[in-house]
Amino acid sequence: MTTTEQQTDPRVIFTPSGRRGRFPTGTTVLDAGRSLGVDIDSVCGGRGLCGRCQVTPGVGSFPKHGIVSAADHLSPEGAIEAEYRRARGLIEGRRLSCTAVVHGDVLIDVPPESQVHRQVVRKGLDVRTFTVDPVVRLHYVVVPPADLARPGGDLARLFGELERDWALTGLEADLGVIRTLQPALERDGGRVTVAVHEGRSVIAVWPGLHERIYGVAVDVGSTTIAGHLADLADGSVLASSGVMNPQIRFGEDLMSRVSYAMLHDGGAAEMTRVVRDALTSLVAGLAASGSIAAADIVDVAVVGNPIMHHLLLGIDPIPLGSAPFALATDRAVQTMAAEIELGGVHPGARVYVLPCIAGHVGADTAGVILAEESQRAERMRLTVDIGTNAEIVLGTKDRLLAASSPTGPAFEGAQISAGQRAAPGAIERVRIDRATLEPRFRVIGSPRWSDEPGFASVERRLGVSGICGSGIVEAIAELFLAGIVTADGVIDGSLAERTPRVVPDGRTYSYVLHEPAGDGPRILVTQNDVRAIQLAKAALYAGVRLLMDHLGVDEVAEIRLAGAFGSQIDLLHAMVLGLIPDCDLAMAAPAGNAAGTGALIALLSAAARREIEAVVRTVEKIETAVEPRFQEHFVDAMAFPHRTAPYPHLRAAIELPTTRTITDTGEDGRAERRRRRVVAAGSREDR
Amino acid sequence: MTTTEQQTDPRVIFTPSGRRGRFPTGTTVLDAGRSLGVDIDSVCGGRGLCGRCQVTPGVGSFPKHGIVSAADHLSPEGAIEAEYRRARGLIEGRRLSCTAVVHGDVLIDVPPESQVHRQVVRKGLDVRTFTVDPVVRLHYVVVPPADLARPGGDLARLFGELERDWALTGLEADLGVIRTLQPALERDGGRVTVAVHEGRSVIAVWPGLHERIYGVAVDVGSTTIAGHLADLADGSVLASSGVMNPQIRFGEDLMSRVSYAMLHDGGAAEMTRVVRDALTSLVAGLAASGSIAAADIVDVAVVGNPIMHHLLLGIDPIPLGSAPFALATDRAVQTMAAEIELGGVHPGARVYVLPCIAGHVGADTAGVILAEESQRAERMRLTVDIGTNAEIVLGTKDRLLAASSPTGPAFEGAQISAGQRAAPGAIERVRIDRATLEPRFRVIGSPRWSDEPGFASVERRLGVSGICGSGIVEAIAELFLAGIVTADGVIDGSLAERTPRVVPDGRTYSYVLHEPAGDGPRILVTQNDVRAIQLAKAALYAGVRLLMDHLGVDEVAEIRLAGAFGSQIDLLHAMVLGLIPDCDLAMAAPAGNAAGTGALIALLSAAARREIEAVVRTVEKIETAVEPRFQEHFVDAMAFPHRTAPYPHLRAAIELPTTRTITDTGEDGRAERRRRRVVAAGSREDR
Repeated sequence: MTTTEQQTDPRVIFTPSGRRGRFPTGTTVLDAGRSLGVDIDSVCGGRGLCGRCQVTPGVGSFPKHGIVSAADHLSPEGAIEAEYRRARGLIEGRRLSCTAVVHGDVLIDVPPESQVHRQVVRKGLDVRTFTVDPVVRLHYVVVPPADLARPGGDLARLFGELERDWALTGLEADLGVIRTLQPALERDGGRVTVAVHEGRSVIAVWPGLHERIYGVAVDVGSTTIAGHLADLADGSVLASSGVMNPQIRFGEDLMSRVSYAMLHDGGAAEMTRVVRDALTSLVAGLAASGSIAAADIVDVAVVGNPIMHHLLLGIDPIPLGSAPFALATDRAVQTMAAEIELGGVHPGARVYVLPCIAGHVGADTAGVILAEESQRAERMRLTVDIGTNAEIVLGTKDRLLAASSPTGPAFEGAQISAGQRAAPGAIERVRIDRATLEPRFRVIGSPRWSDEPGFASVERRLGVSGICGSGIVEAIAELFLAGIVTADGVIDGSLAERTPRVVPDGRTYSYVLHEPAGDGPRILVTQNDVRAIQLAKAALYAGVRLLMDHLGVDEVAEIRLAGAFGSQIDLLHAMVLGLIPDCDLAMAAPAGNAAGTGALIALLSAAARREIEAVVRTVEKIETAVEPRFQEHFVDAMAFPHRTAPYPHLRAAIELPTTRTITDTGEDGRAERRRRRVVAAGSREDR
Repeated sequence: MTTTEQQTDPRVIFTPSGRRGRFPTGTTVLDAGRSLGVDIDSVCGGRGLCGRCQVTPGVGSFPKHGIVSAADHLSPEGAIEAEYRRARGLIEGRRLSCTAVVHGDVLIDVPPESQVHRQVVRKGLDVRTFTVDPVVRLHYVVVPPADLARPGGDLARLFGELERDWALTGLEADLGVIRTLQPALERDGGRVTVAVHEGRSVIAVWPGLHERIYGVAVDVGSTTIAGHLADLADGSVLASSGVMNPQIRFGEDLMSRVSYAMLHDGGAAEMTRVVRDALTSLVAGLAASGSIAAADIVDVAVVGNPIMHHLLLGIDPIPLGSAPFALATDRAVQTMAAEIELGGVHPGARVYVLPCIAGHVGADTAGVILAEESQRAERMRLTVDIGTNAEIVLGTKDRLLAASSPTGPAFEGAQISAGQRAAPGAIERVRIDRATLEPRFRVIGSPRWSDEPGFASVERRLGVSGICGSGIVEAIAELFLAGIVTADGVIDGSLAERTPRVVPDGRTYSYVLHEPAGDGPRILVTQNDVRAIQLAKAALYAGVRLLMDHLGVDEVAEIRLAGAFGSQIDLLHAMVLGLIPDCDLAMAAPAGNAAGTGALIALLSAAARREIEAVVRTVEKIETAVEPRFQEHFVDAMAFPHRTAPYPHLRAAIELPTTRTITDTGEDGRAERRRRRVVAAGSREDR
């Protein structure tokens, strides 16, 4: 309500907010809305240029709101609006609220796209609904020319207009803005658009009306660097892309990169340089894909595990390689793009790096929490981001715990005889007939099962090159369900009598998943493959169980699996193997690349940044390496699905086999040696 | 007073503050002082390492304070203090207040060097007394090691200690600090010293106790870049030095540099590069002279005229070359040393550039105001910084006006036939006998007058190479006083009959100031020299008069002349020529390099920065180019001392000659053409 309202003044009611007031005839709809605190966007400051403030006047009687609204209760379309309609188009019934003037009672609907804080539901990106609350905003102003009689600075005059039109006070400006302000002012008669960061710092200036600025959200993984390009005003994602992390040439896994830094002078700096170069390429590619100028990118949000975080920021990662695994900082880092040598973007571009949680639980996990809203969970929720390490978050809105468990690279297809990265031709789905013990499978790139007609053409086209992480989990789970692999993880050689698929392989047995028709590889599941998955899943389960102990709970109510592998595996098969604890399968779901999604949310919402910074401080960090119970849990978790855990939900969903126990399988000693290393206190070989 | 004090607790009285309180036995003197708000310095936080908190306990009865103090009312010297005394020495009677514990009534004197906010009186630098109030402060802390059970960031642990020991909250840290923190912590068991800027940003970290940090104050002049190196803790100046501004090769005066920028693509960038290189050299030289590591320089304060200001900051100076002479910014600029490519200093070093006042009145004038405290003047004070332009500040504490007047380079020896820069061998003092019309003079580098015995050896040693700015002013004033030059500025050719010193020179006459004994140059004062000085002084006077008009005053009470020339000229001779308005000569004084002094004050005092920022906003800017009266005043001011101004104080001090009027001196047209250009509205050729 305005304080000066008269009972005879026209009534203006805004939907969906329901805010209402009386305003003198002649008030613009935008001014009326603003004075009521209605959320209406504008870049041009009510000059009829940007079209962000569009509204739809109601026509007819609205008994619920107690008014009769009519199109002619607003001023007719004027010259500015007509010009906008001619040049840019205006949906039928829409008005520019900055030019439409109130003449009588009117109901005004503010469509979502005209709201600054609009709700965003993103499909395909697995983004929860969140409110875009831009950290960097555009403001258009017309700066009066310098005046000989009142000499002063261009910057002071700009600040004056920003205060007058946009109520921005206490502003500061980058030196780069001061450098470019004068030519920008000159180019278009003092009309400029500025980008303001956090309502405080002017970080960019353009001549005339500049309508769009962009941001990039990046997940710097050890293997892949993935990014989304988003419009900072409406949160729309224009392009998503990934590049390989070129640090791979210094070591496949994180620990070997730390070793590289330890063993080579300047090694860390070299890895910093290549990851920064890759980020610059990624951003250039995103800009090209999104058909925008990279120089219009003004903000970047970054997540990554602690070692990627440190290397990108140019911080020595060596302390993260050994106890006490001390982070240089567990605060969010706010810096300039130039400070991390990110090229091509606007010179004033900012970089926001989400906070790391602990030495093994990085900003990527902070991103997962932000994306999955773990801090708002009503029921006990387990969220796991599975990569070379599994980052585990467990708890409810009242208490959150986080830990990292050294699963190793088996889930990514490494250490598996036929393992490969998830790529076309890789086996990703497996079924084994309980009676015949015959397999069927699907490869990435085709929906056809291997026992369906026409699979031969799929095989010719894609090849059947190996098994990806989700494929090996499914294969071993099916082998267990078919009784070929025992609960202890032994391939039962006695079955060689029943099926030619079980074949001797040295002193152990393998299962032949695929005999190639042409010259492709024969694809086996070996005893060592089973052992590698047992070790990985036992490490994951032991970490989860440790957090459950800390919380004093025996079961979890909800499960979210994030990461490329976590999003692809079949949850039933994962539970059959005991990767995850027992849970109602209806309450388990994949979470996609939640870390990258978290980066996107942080990119688009200042409130989300403040929230994750606060949440991270309250998360309790559990260091698996120093917990003696981790070793006990690890040993118990080696069996399928588990030596002692009853798994009632799983048993209700599927019948588990009763397999015999085979001792002394004669397997070679590699897997056993690795198991011993993981069990040994403090051993963290793959961080 | 502490709130817990007991009437039986010992009394502690601090001098000179007079603060007093009762404290339980066992309280350290430092803690007692701090709880009373007594200003006692400390870097190490009371660990007996830095020795900054030294105090002198009183011994005896102090009736004025009502107590009997005794050395044994403090704890005896302990191990820490003894070690400090052994390693670093302690003046007899001094105690470290952080280790000395109160046992009974005691009077504690805090010597000036133990105060954070100490008063500084600088000799030789013409610095007024001011209070050092460091913008960057050192804080020593002992950061506990990372702990496996409670993983967290090094930075958070550092912030925790800074809050606990130093009550610093809301801190942020440069990425560079985050990068270097871990190795610093490791080097000395968690003992580090940090530099905190404005109580908010951690900009540097060193292992162990780091006792000294430094700053540089720079005056970037068109000809010379001058700097002082100061200890940021006590304000002591360790070295002062100057280098030529290498931009001179792009143009002697400011306007020709702007022309260079206009006529050459990348010209401004080239000038930016060379001045930044020169600044880097200057800072390296200062560090070497002061025997300190340049990397310990963490703050830089800069003044300069608007064009130097813009070029150093990388801002296009072209808009400053024509009306409306718009500054890019008239705010103080706070940036990083790296942003202006200042090398060698600490990577986290900050740069503070004082605010410019108007398009022709720069940060150098802000420095002059700060040094001279114009904003506190009780009586009407004129302050002029004389270079190629004269920056004029006039007013009192109630109202300050500023303007710039295009004096041209004559005062610096340019446009003068025998003119040269102030350097050994240049004539700087001149006297002409009123009866014989014979001159005598002194050259820079010798106190001997030319008519004194032994001058021949001076001439052999130094040469008599030309006349510097102050020399030409004195020469012409003496010629006027001797009746050789008329009030209209004509060299009276009729005197050639009386003295061989007056000689024809084309259609005009010259005065022979020096006939060389050997092969040095014959040194003349020509008619054109007189005209050049007339033009320069008329421009200066007209600017001053304009400000007097604006303030509605007819005379000034005090005069301060700043700058190399302004500090060297004889004030009486300057008044005889009418460079400055009439004033009691006892109230006129040179101000030295006030601009550089202002930079030094801003370097050493956060309060001074806030003050000059506030003062600059209130200064009224007068643009001489658009004031019609400037032309009238200029014409009137061509005569010696002035056509109409009565100069009562001057006439009381010295008898002015009554000279005849000589029309049509037949001089060549150059000077006249220049006069016309200056008079023409808006013409500002030498900005």
